[in-house]
Amino acid sequence: MRKDALAVEEPLEIRVSWLEGQRRRVEAVAVTMRTPGHDFDLVAGFLRSEGVVSAPADLVELTYCRGNDEQEYNVVEARLSGDAIFDLDLVRRNVYTTSSCGVCGKASLEAVEATGCTVIPTGYSVARDVIPDLPDRLLEGQAVFERTGGLHAAGLFDASGERLLVMEDVGRHNAVDKVIGHEFLARRLPAAERILVVSGRASFELVQKAVVAGIPMLVAVGAPSSLAVDLARRFGQTLVGFTRNGGFNVYTGSERIR
Amino acid sequence: MRKDALAVEEPLEIRVSWLEGQRRRVEAVAVTMRTPGHDFDLVAGFLRSEGVVSAPADLVELTYCRGNDEQEYNVVEARLSGDAIFDLDLVRRNVYTTSSCGVCGKASLEAVEATGCTVIPTGYSVARDVIPDLPDRLLEGQAVFERTGGLHAAGLFDASGERLLVMEDVGRHNAVDKVIGHEFLARRLPAAERILVVSGRASFELVQKAVVAGIPMLVAVGAPSSLAVDLARRFGQTLVGFTRNGGFNVYTGSERIR
Repeated sequence: MRKDALAVEEPLEIRVSWLEGQRRRVEAVAVTMRTPGHDFDLVAGFLRSEGVVSAPADLVELTYCRGNDEQEYNVVEARLSGDAIFDLDLVRRNVYTTSSCGVCGKASLEAVEATGCTVIPTGYSVARDVIPDLPDRLLEGQAVFERTGGLHAAGLFDASGERLLVMEDVGRHNAVDKVIGHEFLARRLPAAERILVVSGRASFELVQKAVVAGIPMLVAVGAPSSLAVDLARRFGQTLVGFTRNGGFNVYTGSERIR
Repeated sequence: MRKDALAVEEPLEIRVSWLEGQRRRVEAVAVTMRTPGHDFDLVAGFLRSEGVVSAPADLVELTYCRGNDEQEYNVVEARLSGDAIFDLDLVRRNVYTTSSCGVCGKASLEAVEATGCTVIPTGYSVARDVIPDLPDRLLEGQAVFERTGGLHAAGLFDASGERLLVMEDVGRHNAVDKVIGHEFLARRLPAAERILVVSGRASFELVQKAVVAGIPMLVAVGAPSSLAVDLARRFGQTLVGFTRNGGFNVYTGSERIR
């Protein structure tokens, strides 16, 4: 019954403001339970991953919506440019397909294509001996994890294994959104010469976010799911899993590992 | 580059059918990426956790919605009874609060109260030496994990440490929904004499689901978040984390551990 430092988890409401004709509307599109910090990166990454914005110019402003003292930093409003087209229902439903009866893995894959994702170019490659060290380098970059054990991490690395950016969150999808949003706001997407390293498993959702960001290689400490492998294959992404104890498994795109 | 068995991940669309006046409507309320299997349990647990249904009588029927060959088992329709009140927007938005500007941890806690959850009664207790073995017993009950390493597990145990039920999924919230839905459909909620054991971390969302199901003790292999601890405390639930290497931490409700 010793005292621990706990990973902080608080809700963040994401609001979008957009022009409908002459009128500007504001609506909440999502509430995510996240670890506070880098909230604008998180919101930008979420909106990019969901296809709400495609280019930095689509996103005019990010602001905290100040209500009262208590919840001052738990609502972020993203103001879209007048040119941006926004479909509120589509984003709220977060349904991958609109076919008359149902969804399937194939439809999920096609839905990612429908958001404008294209196959990631070949040419980028990483030396085999860089990969096993990436999880340790990710861990070294984490500020909170060692104290709480409760946070997922996502980090960007270059082909030499240099750590460029690490984000942490109680939600692994949030950690990845923070990384992608940070690069989006810095106008560095597509991240065509980067490796994304994640502390946990590789799900469909994480591969999707990496594909949207144009990242050629995703390295997970844990296992990928079947649909994650299918999605990485379809978009020509290199997917590495079980990166532990000096070894790793390559599921797709082994031509990028030399 | 050896071959692995992969954890299967496929989308499941959850549709709700309900009476609006004389007319029955059907709408999709969520798509979750899940490991196929126990889909009706998953849907029942999701609907119970979200407050869409309160008692087994609210849920008249669960059926697969057959479209074409490919996606036959990826859409489940839940038919609500004529007496059930259903608020489509509320469920779709999954927003924890409706206050004018924003959300905060406190509002999230109050939103759980608003769904009709009450403080879990005292009286149930578990011997201290039962707890350290629970994660291993959960693991023994997993069918797929050892082959893939890619699945979260959630299990129900009694106070003697006997394993009653284990569910697996690529999503930890889905594994918990499968457990809770199974008990809901078997008319065994509230599960007032059960321990819920989860293979990963304890987030707000998992504690919320356990509180809704009236489970007095949640044991996580990993760490809890700050808001998970707050929620467990508010509802008088015993929350145990870092259950590994023979030890564990008690965050709330230590009076249930004797």
